[in-house]
Amino acid sequence: MALRSKRQTAYIETKVHRGAYMKSDLEPFFNPKTVAVVGASARKASVGGVIFRNFLKPAFKGVVYPINPRATEVLGIPSYERVSSVPEPVDLTVIAVPAGIVPKIMEDCEEKGVKAVIIISGGFKEIGTEGAYLEEQVIQIAKRSGIRVIGPNCIGIYDTNTGVDTTFLPASRMGRPGKGYISFISQSGAFAAAVLDINAQSGLGVSRVISFGNKADVNEIDLIKFLGTDRETRVIIEYLEGLSPSTGSSYIQTAKIVTSQKPIIVVKAGRSKRGSVAAASHTGALAGDARLYDFAFHQAGILSAQDFEDGFEMAKTLATQPPAKGNRVLVVTDAGGAGVMTVDACEALGLTVPEPPEKEMQILREAFPSYCSVNNPIDLTGDTDAERYQIAFDTLLGTAHYDGAIAIVMMQIPLLDLDIVDRLVAIVRKYDKPLVALTAGGRFTMKGAQLLEEAGIPTLPTPARAAKAIWALVEYGQHLRKIHSQKKSK
Amino acid sequence: MALRSKRQTAYIETKVHRGAYMKSDLEPFFNPKTVAVVGASARKASVGGVIFRNFLKPAFKGVVYPINPRATEVLGIPSYERVSSVPEPVDLTVIAVPAGIVPKIMEDCEEKGVKAVIIISGGFKEIGTEGAYLEEQVIQIAKRSGIRVIGPNCIGIYDTNTGVDTTFLPASRMGRPGKGYISFISQSGAFAAAVLDINAQSGLGVSRVISFGNKADVNEIDLIKFLGTDRETRVIIEYLEGLSPSTGSSYIQTAKIVTSQKPIIVVKAGRSKRGSVAAASHTGALAGDARLYDFAFHQAGILSAQDFEDGFEMAKTLATQPPAKGNRVLVVTDAGGAGVMTVDACEALGLTVPEPPEKEMQILREAFPSYCSVNNPIDLTGDTDAERYQIAFDTLLGTAHYDGAIAIVMMQIPLLDLDIVDRLVAIVRKYDKPLVALTAGGRFTMKGAQLLEEAGIPTLPTPARAAKAIWALVEYGQHLRKIHSQKKSK
Repeated sequence: MALRSKRQTAYIETKVHRGAYMKSDLEPFFNPKTVAVVGASARKASVGGVIFRNFLKPAFKGVVYPINPRATEVLGIPSYERVSSVPEPVDLTVIAVPAGIVPKIMEDCEEKGVKAVIIISGGFKEIGTEGAYLEEQVIQIAKRSGIRVIGPNCIGIYDTNTGVDTTFLPASRMGRPGKGYISFISQSGAFAAAVLDINAQSGLGVSRVISFGNKADVNEIDLIKFLGTDRETRVIIEYLEGLSPSTGSSYIQTAKIVTSQKPIIVVKAGRSKRGSVAAASHTGALAGDARLYDFAFHQAGILSAQDFEDGFEMAKTLATQPPAKGNRVLVVTDAGGAGVMTVDACEALGLTVPEPPEKEMQILREAFPSYCSVNNPIDLTGDTDAERYQIAFDTLLGTAHYDGAIAIVMMQIPLLDLDIVDRLVAIVRKYDKPLVALTAGGRFTMKGAQLLEEAGIPTLPTPARAAKAIWALVEYGQHLRKIHSQKKSK
Repeated sequence: MALRSKRQTAYIETKVHRGAYMKSDLEPFFNPKTVAVVGASARKASVGGVIFRNFLKPAFKGVVYPINPRATEVLGIPSYERVSSVPEPVDLTVIAVPAGIVPKIMEDCEEKGVKAVIIISGGFKEIGTEGAYLEEQVIQIAKRSGIRVIGPNCIGIYDTNTGVDTTFLPASRMGRPGKGYISFISQSGAFAAAVLDINAQSGLGVSRVISFGNKADVNEIDLIKFLGTDRETRVIIEYLEGLSPSTGSSYIQTAKIVTSQKPIIVVKAGRSKRGSVAAASHTGALAGDARLYDFAFHQAGILSAQDFEDGFEMAKTLATQPPAKGNRVLVVTDAGGAGVMTVDACEALGLTVPEPPEKEMQILREAFPSYCSVNNPIDLTGDTDAERYQIAFDTLLGTAHYDGAIAIVMMQIPLLDLDIVDRLVAIVRKYDKPLVALTAGGRFTMKGAQLLEEAGIPTLPTPARAAKAIWALVEYGQHLRKIHSQKKSK
């Protein structure tokens, strides 16, 4: 029998069996009560072996069954010859066996009444005519049976909420990030793996990560719809090479609905001439005219990111800070040069960095030494302590003149201690306006940056990246206001 | 008496006393035989105390004298009341005492025949009229005596070649990077400190770092001239807010001469409208019209960087890879998505990513599985090992069709081992064309990235940053060809 403790059963009953959670037919992918792994084995080097082991980890609260006709048990757990032999209903089947026998397994899943199938195996459409024929068979079975299919040719799902993890890359190569509220959708498997590894290293948590490969059935539209109503997802980020003419407008329509609830960030590849040729060869995507995408994305309120670094930095900012009500940015700094460059970066993105009103400037002049600058950027200079930051924000962020702030905290200077973190956190709470931090340096700074991030203050290492983070909040705020005024006028 | 071992004496004689090294009157700043620290004390929290301690470290091979009228000895070393009391010639004096007494100390230095003075102290022009008066006195003494002055209001010099270190920030706050071949000039002290700390953390070495503050005497022109003929400097990078009308054209003339020998990268701040206002308030710089700077920089062969991250990534690339002979880039990848985005990033910067000739494509088609793409980007896919990289580069990089390459090595995939590092190093040696690597991820990847960097292959974490690195080599190569053809036609 499969493993299930009393505590686990209780968890499953509350989490899975309560109707409210089962709205979408994609739910069994992310929160299955029972999982069958076809190709499960004790071999650590086999794809099925790694995936089966993933489901044995304590993070997964459901039950997992190994399916392997050549074994009676796998790692001490009784194995079944086929999915249909499993003695209880199977929510999710994960397939990691050669492409040629996948249609047969699909038929078996149909017989069993499986709700969802993730096909990890490659060897389908991406390798040519023969594979395309196999994929067509899979699609037909899925359509007639109502089974939803992710893949083939993908790494599937990594879900920090439920412990579902079909990524088959060894832990020594790919770290697994912790719980967060950013969900990531990727056409590219290698990319999804790299992103998981990067985030595990940086400490940025994720919610649900989906690599959907050839998208024989489940595509980006299904996924943004699902994540759009998912309470564990605050921001959706997607790596996209192109939309097909048949799904393009439906995608944009769906996105428009989702972005009224939560932000969608798209990293669109294949923007250049040769890049779109490369995209066609990579995923068969019609990368199309970049300007058309930009226009459609803007209409739908989708934020465009330059790359995954940019995308995840915007995502973490949108996941932790409120949207901005306008584009007027307050910059407070302890390093004059970084202040100047941050102003440059803000203006390059269409943000403004207005001077404070004379009254507030006078207050700051009286509070600070004469060599400090009070014009915005407020330059507290290299002998500042946390108190000057407090005064600057208390004097200016509460006024109607600013919509958000960038706090530049270069931590090499001797009088600035880590209590700056608590000060900034208190400021964010007090004024309910978005704030991001800019800091860069070695060990001490990295400790400070980590504390800031843990406290929910997005922390960026360069002026351009800090300005881009604030820009995302301004842009998304503007979109929300547009939607709101459209609704009102109806 | 001051500390000096036999070995140290020998070193000083060969390094300092041989005439060939003494070409520039800035040499005593960087390679002094004897240093006097005015304001030296045993207190760890005092600026003079930190600087004095720096000169006691084994990295500094010269002799250091504490100057402190209130002490007979500092840390066991006999102290002198004034610089002129030191019993041997003094090459460099570092001043870290209140501004008001600095003119008097300058007079003493004049009497002693000191060659170079670094004034760390603030309280001069930057605080207003009174300070400006003091600064004027300093300048007059410097002019009549021929003493060269760096500062005031600066952190001075950090030199990994000679151990000169006048940075006064505690080691717990600011790391000190190791030896490298990039020299950095900064108008902003806080910026220089941050850059040292960042590089210490990332492992990127530096050669000579100079923060020159109010530039009462030594300015950026003197410094790029000195570094231009300095054999320990391969690339010069500068943080600049603005040039004055009186020095602008001289700077550009000097830069033009230097860039025929080695690259200069400038991070120009104050580009935007509000940014130039902020720059005026920060360093009194006339930030001016960004387009005029761009034009003049381009004429002089200066490379513009967006910020310090961008600037140092270009610098490390130019310090380790040969300039490119054209703009045709070969992209070899194990992750399709990263390949597409890299092509986009290359084309956005005016680089081309041309398809290989049919003959070479046929060779690759025969060597690789059918699902690999051979069109450039060469997509080796997620099951590649190092061997496929070797074949791709051996087939294409040696041909006349490519001027440089980006190797995308996402190390999450199981069959790619760290021997990829040795392969890439061998490829660079074999073909003498520039190559940069793109990789991003967690622990395993970071180990690989470190090995690549140590082997002299610049390694970047995003497609845009990898493309920018290659762009710098293309741009600088183009500049060298232009100079060459101008010389020929004369």
